[in-house]
Amino acid sequence: MLETLKEQVCEANLELNRRGIVIYTFGNVSGIDREAGLIVIKPSGIAYDIMKPEDMVVVDLKTGDPVEGKWKPSSDTKTHLEIYRAFPEVRGITHTHSINAVAFAQAGLDIPALGTTHADYFYGAIPCTRELTKEEVEEAYELNTGKVIVDCIKERGIDPMAVPGIVVKNHGPFSWGKDADAAVYHAVVMEAVAEMGLKTLLLNQTASMQQYVLDKHYKRKHGPGAYYGQK
Amino acid sequence: MLETLKEQVCEANLELNRRGIVIYTFGNVSGIDREAGLIVIKPSGIAYDIMKPEDMVVVDLKTGDPVEGKWKPSSDTKTHLEIYRAFPEVRGITHTHSINAVAFAQAGLDIPALGTTHADYFYGAIPCTRELTKEEVEEAYELNTGKVIVDCIKERGIDPMAVPGIVVKNHGPFSWGKDADAAVYHAVVMEAVAEMGLKTLLLNQTASMQQYVLDKHYKRKHGPGAYYGQK
Amino acid sequence: MLETLKEQVCEANLELNRRGIVIYTFGNVSGIDREAGLIVIKPSGIAYDIMKPEDMVVVDLKTGDPVEGKWKPSSDTKTHLEIYRAFPEVRGITHTHSINAVAFAQAGLDIPALGTTHADYFYGAIPCTRELTKEEVEEAYELNTGKVIVDCIKERGIDPMAVPGIVVKNHGPFSWGKDADAAVYHAVVMEAVAEMGLKTLLLNQTASMQQYVLDKHYKRKHGPGAYYGQK
Amino acid sequence: MLETLKEQVCEANLELNRRGIVIYTFGNVSGIDREAGLIVIKPSGIAYDIMKPEDMVVVDLKTGDPVEGKWKPSSDTKTHLEIYRAFPEVRGITHTHSINAVAFAQAGLDIPALGTTHADYFYGAIPCTRELTKEEVEEAYELNTGKVIVDCIKERGIDPMAVPGIVVKNHGPFSWGKDADAAVYHAVVMEAVAEMGLKTLLLNQTASMQQYVLDKHYKRKHGPGAYYGQK
Repeated sequence: MLETLKEQVCEANLELNRRGIVIYTFGNVSGIDREAGLIVIKPSGIAYDIMKPEDMVVVDLKTGDPVEGKWKPSSDTKTHLEIYRAFPEVRGITHTHSINAVAFAQAGLDIPALGTTHADYFYGAIPCTRELTKEEVEEAYELNTGKVIVDCIKERGIDPMAVPGIVVKNHGPFSWGKDADAAVYHAVVMEAVAEMGLKTLLLNQTASMQQYVLDKHYKRKHGPGAYYGQK
Repeated sequence: MLETLKEQVCEANLELNRRGIVIYTFGNVSGIDREAGLIVIKPSGIAYDIMKPEDMVVVDLKTGDPVEGKWKPSSDTKTHLEIYRAFPEVRGITHTHSINAVAFAQAGLDIPALGTTHADYFYGAIPCTRELTKEEVEEAYELNTGKVIVDCIKERGIDPMAVPGIVVKNHGPFSWGKDADAAVYHAVVMEAVAEMGLKTLLLNQTASMQQYVLDKHYKRKHGPGAYYGQK
Repeated sequence: MLETLKEQVCEANLELNRRGIVIYTFGNVSGIDREAGLIVIKPSGIAYDIMKPEDMVVVDLKTGDPVEGKWKPSSDTKTHLEIYRAFPEVRGITHTHSINAVAFAQAGLDIPALGTTHADYFYGAIPCTRELTKEEVEEAYELNTGKVIVDCIKERGIDPMAVPGIVVKNHGPFSWGKDADAAVYHAVVMEAVAEMGLKTLLLNQTASMQQYVLDKHYKRKHGPGAYYGQK
Repeated sequence: MLETLKEQVCEANLELNRRGIVIYTFGNVSGIDREAGLIVIKPSGIAYDIMKPEDMVVVDLKTGDPVEGKWKPSSDTKTHLEIYRAFPEVRGITHTHSINAVAFAQAGLDIPALGTTHADYFYGAIPCTRELTKEEVEEAYELNTGKVIVDCIKERGIDPMAVPGIVVKNHGPFSWGKDADAAVYHAVVMEAVAEMGLKTLLLNQTASMQQYVLDKHYKRKHGPGAYYGQK
């Protein structure tokens, strides 16, 4: 079942590795078939160099139960599910431990929108979530990680398709998009803008960008007035 | 038309990728045929791994209109045109989002001339432009980016062939040269000297270089007294 | 003798190089056959690109004498032996000069546990040993390096299988595990978390992680309640 | 003439590129035949990917005149010659613009001896020279760069074979050794210890190493009591 989606998701997981933002099994990508109500996700702890489409695991969006697959799904599956449940436009999710994005997560800081590289893909700061409480961690860690992500996006009034990523405090980046490929693309860009942001702050702690530059660059690529790329 | 120039410009775009200073479509290179009054530039948002000479777009220098090509030209085309219009010796232009040069752009700082690596190619600090105003951004963003670049060079009394690059505030580096290859070369060197500069400032905030060292190194490679390389 | 172990140890040494955490001969890996009371270790100063299983050296755990092999064993052999003697569960050891871990060693600082990447493999800060005394260095440097490592682990009450690595002050990282592969894996992860930690501290000098997040992530992967990966 | 030396010097120049410490033509290596009183050096401004042994240039040690070769020698030839003249044990010299070593050069700081990676190859801090005066730069820049290097080594009472490298203020690293290969090796190690040093200082501005650790590590590899590597 969902053979095309499995191929896409497997390929997106391999792309993470090719782009140099994961080592070993430090990352996972999923995709969703909204009509079927099923997600396809990387198996837990399987090395990239032997991963094949048939290793992908199918999980029910509503119940969280595995529906098909010879392996256990990624241990972060419940986090992915919670994001899919909250944001219907999201059709692909990526989680990595890319170094510069993790540095912001560990520092407990948003990745600030300081330039047009950021503005081209993220319409504002990439938020850092609050810390999970002891109870949230002990009772249902992965599910509550998803809830904290969703709450952060909603409380800040962010459109998740306009800021397609977040860093979870003391953990690392999650990103998403219209499909698995877009989620990976946003993970790679987030790592690049995190490195740019960190280096900018080392040069100038009070660096900032005008809102109208953010508006211009984001809208040049997204929405009804977009004119970047081919039609 | 302009088949040789298309090949050069295509190859120069691919070189950006090979040198590791761009990811995805984060960069563009153009070249000009001054006699024909036409520029050749990378198409907007086309991946490097499928790019061919015939994908390049020909644009009229004066009108800015596309003259030939199956794709839309780079969204930064108007910025390139403005630089070509102002500086007749410039025959190739590159724009990237290379990380260390962007850090200076986002910090709003010139890349200072702190050593001979810099002095070999850039005769003084690589300037950071002023911020564009809200009106400039909203009315004609790419054109005004070009104007701000040109104004910065002129106001500071810089010879654009002696300092063949700039960082646009909150955006990133533009570089140029006698052809597309030279523009790419300067983009790669700018990224290297930006990383050197950043690391130097982390070690010593008051680092500087004597003017006579700058003079010596630049003139060893450029101008009538040059003696570097083969004749 | 020990042909399988020699192959594993040789391969683990080559993996150090492939993972990009050593240059030249800056690293060594050993493995142990507990039943035979023998260790297999990289020869001293042999380049990775010509290293073969038959170049590995067999050394007696108790006496430290070479038992088989055409080369002298790694100059760090006595340090490896001391760790094997103190911790019976350790069956593989790696030493490198990976840059970010060395930075903590040279700074005389623990690599702090600031996030879940760290917590997934190291149950707490990766300790930095005390300085060796002049007498310890002059009388039996490599042996005493091993003793200082062992003392540090014991004095802090650390389970060496839960925190499978350490940085030796002014020197660099040692890591270990259930076999040579695991020791290399921990060396690679230690370098990644060291880079994350350093960048985190540049962003926020007071960064920290809750103990319950450390507990959760470590125990998700290790011990009776582990549920990461396949069974 | 000197065909073997030309092959060694050519190969050493290519090795600089393979080790990733130079881009474009940013580096040069030479070797000397002490008996013949001739050095072999890289031609000026020739790309690494087309360089062949027959492109190397032979220069007279005493007069500085080219003796054989179809190209002009490296523009830094006079600096190399001055080092060869002062230190008879030196038989190979390398100059690069490797980023982290340049950062120390531009900051005007020695690369401090903070750990055993450094101590294994450099018996003490890698010095940063004084600034050249305006007269020195204008009258005989490359020759005077050599003189300033030699003076710095002599004034500090350094054995050039024990500290086989230096950074020239506002310029970059020079290294040397018993042959061209050793000079390149020291250039690569210098870049690594410069990166380690910089990152150490970011973590702890007062980091230092005991003299007896420096003694032990250096002497473990060098001199009559050395026991590292194979005999």
